[in-house]
Amino acid sequence: MRFSFLPQEHNFFDLFEKQAGCAVDAATHFKEVVSKNNLEDEASLKKMHDIEHQGDDVTHEILSRLNKTFITPFDREDIHTLAKELDDVIDMIYTITNRLRVYKISGPDQNLLKFATIIEESVRAVACAVKGLRNLKNAKSIGETCVEINRLENVGDSMRDSMFAELFAKEKDAIAIIKWKEIYQDAETVLDICEDVAHIVQSILVKQA
Amino acid sequence: MRFSFLPQEHNFFDLFEKQAGCAVDAATHFKEVVSKNNLEDEASLKKMHDIEHQGDDVTHEILSRLNKTFITPFDREDIHTLAKELDDVIDMIYTITNRLRVYKISGPDQNLLKFATIIEESVRAVACAVKGLRNLKNAKSIGETCVEINRLENVGDSMRDSMFAELFAKEKDAIAIIKWKEIYQDAETVLDICEDVAHIVQSILVKQA
Amino acid sequence: MRFSFLPQEHNFFDLFEKQAGCAVDAATHFKEVVSKNNLEDEASLKKMHDIEHQGDDVTHEILSRLNKTFITPFDREDIHTLAKELDDVIDMIYTITNRLRVYKISGPDQNLLKFATIIEESVRAVACAVKGLRNLKNAKSIGETCVEINRLENVGDSMRDSMFAELFAKEKDAIAIIKWKEIYQDAETVLDICEDVAHIVQSILVKQA
Repeated sequence: MRFSFLPQEHNFFDLFEKQAGCAVDAATHFKEVVSKNNLEDEASLKKMHDIEHQGDDVTHEILSRLNKTFITPFDREDIHTLAKELDDVIDMIYTITNRLRVYKISGPDQNLLKFATIIEESVRAVACAVKGLRNLKNAKSIGETCVEINRLENVGDSMRDSMFAELFAKEKDAIAIIKWKEIYQDAETVLDICEDVAHIVQSILVKQA
Repeated sequence: MRFSFLPQEHNFFDLFEKQAGCAVDAATHFKEVVSKNNLEDEASLKKMHDIEHQGDDVTHEILSRLNKTFITPFDREDIHTLAKELDDVIDMIYTITNRLRVYKISGPDQNLLKFATIIEESVRAVACAVKGLRNLKNAKSIGETCVEINRLENVGDSMRDSMFAELFAKEKDAIAIIKWKEIYQDAETVLDICEDVAHIVQSILVKQA
Repeated sequence: MRFSFLPQEHNFFDLFEKQAGCAVDAATHFKEVVSKNNLEDEASLKKMHDIEHQGDDVTHEILSRLNKTFITPFDREDIHTLAKELDDVIDMIYTITNRLRVYKISGPDQNLLKFATIIEESVRAVACAVKGLRNLKNAKSIGETCVEINRLENVGDSMRDSMFAELFAKEKDAIAIIKWKEIYQDAETVLDICEDVAHIVQSILVKQA
């Protein structure tokens, strides 16, 4: 094994930007899938699968480089956490897409579309915050972006609560409740993970200030 | 940003005591809410929300001070974990309270009341263990408190198992099963998180001995 | 408290092998339980409980030794994570076994038996990888074992998806869906945790290379 003695800052920042880019691809594609939600559309599902694979490759590249590098642009532990959480964002979006097919849910659902819209907003904000890490001069604007990510998570919480209330009040088919409860919950979890990313980004900034 | 070069022991201990106090407030109020469980009682729900917000503020204060402090009374990682887990206790109690309203569950449930009683016991023991951290002379009594927290978690496990068995044996309405299964499970999770707090407290003690 | 100044390599490796042995016992016994799944067979359930207790004891021994030892054969954090994850494997197998009894599920289920078979394969591979940690010369074969554990996790993912699809397509009883959905999901989670163990083992190897 070869160890690099040079700072790998450039590489880590590039890789995180690439990983955040995969998350944006996943979120954008998710909104498309959800707005049609055509069970016959195998190409759409395959595309999401490909994005998830690309994300896995970048995550693996970051973690493997971390294990081989002595000098890192910020805390090793934080690099590890950030890489895992960005990977979790992509995985969770893939999981929901796959679950729609497993549960044979067809046709768009207005509630899920609302979630897909907020998820795309939040993931774009996450990509913006991650990109900003390259330069400490961005601290103020990153901070504002993180506040926005937290706000979107709160919006998601309320949305999930009212969707659950509506679901349990109106839907009489317990099997449909099982399916939708899980899908709305997973959608809200994407926003939770985005908030986790915002926390780690803020913590990296504070330590470097 | 200003860094403090003075040990922040005093502050961290104060903050942890304050955070554990919020957890006790949440657990005490939870028992009250559950013993009435009146859906019209908006004031009760608002009070729980306020407690959760206070808890968030203290958690944020601990984590932000941690990022700015060089010398800490115990491992940085342990401070972070302890703060997150105490926050999780409060969040989970809030989640259950909120879920009762979302699911429009009214009237007291004897099983949930049993859980609320054990949760209050366990959270009070957690607060006692956390308070003890100020002084290593308390090691023995803290150890005993942690054993008690572990015992209550085991009690909770058995309670959840028998409540599940009863629920699936007697309740024929699948939608009611979905609701109660989640609520009992979340109640048991509060005790799991209390046990996690006991583990981290014990690990802090051992390292300082 | 007494601190040891001697490397505890021997002890940690022994303990991890013992803990992985408990996981193999749990997985092997799980396949037996699942192939009969006789609710009257209290002895089988008690045996699983005993295995879980032995696992707890070894986990506790590792964590407590870790807190008292200055020099460790690999990263403290990695020792902690590995011990917790091996413990999680055993706990999750115990949870499923217990849930079968709580839900009064009797008679073998071919799907669950398929999972039990893959779980046993994966846990045996985990034990093999953990055992290999003693000697860096094993790096290549451990790497191959970890690839196999990842492959089994992927197999488990697909299995769960097709079992869910089948369950929601054929089963009309929502209460049965609630039970089996949880059991298949938990079975797949065992394979997820095995994959987490493979990741930590690989990360330990890379750092020592």
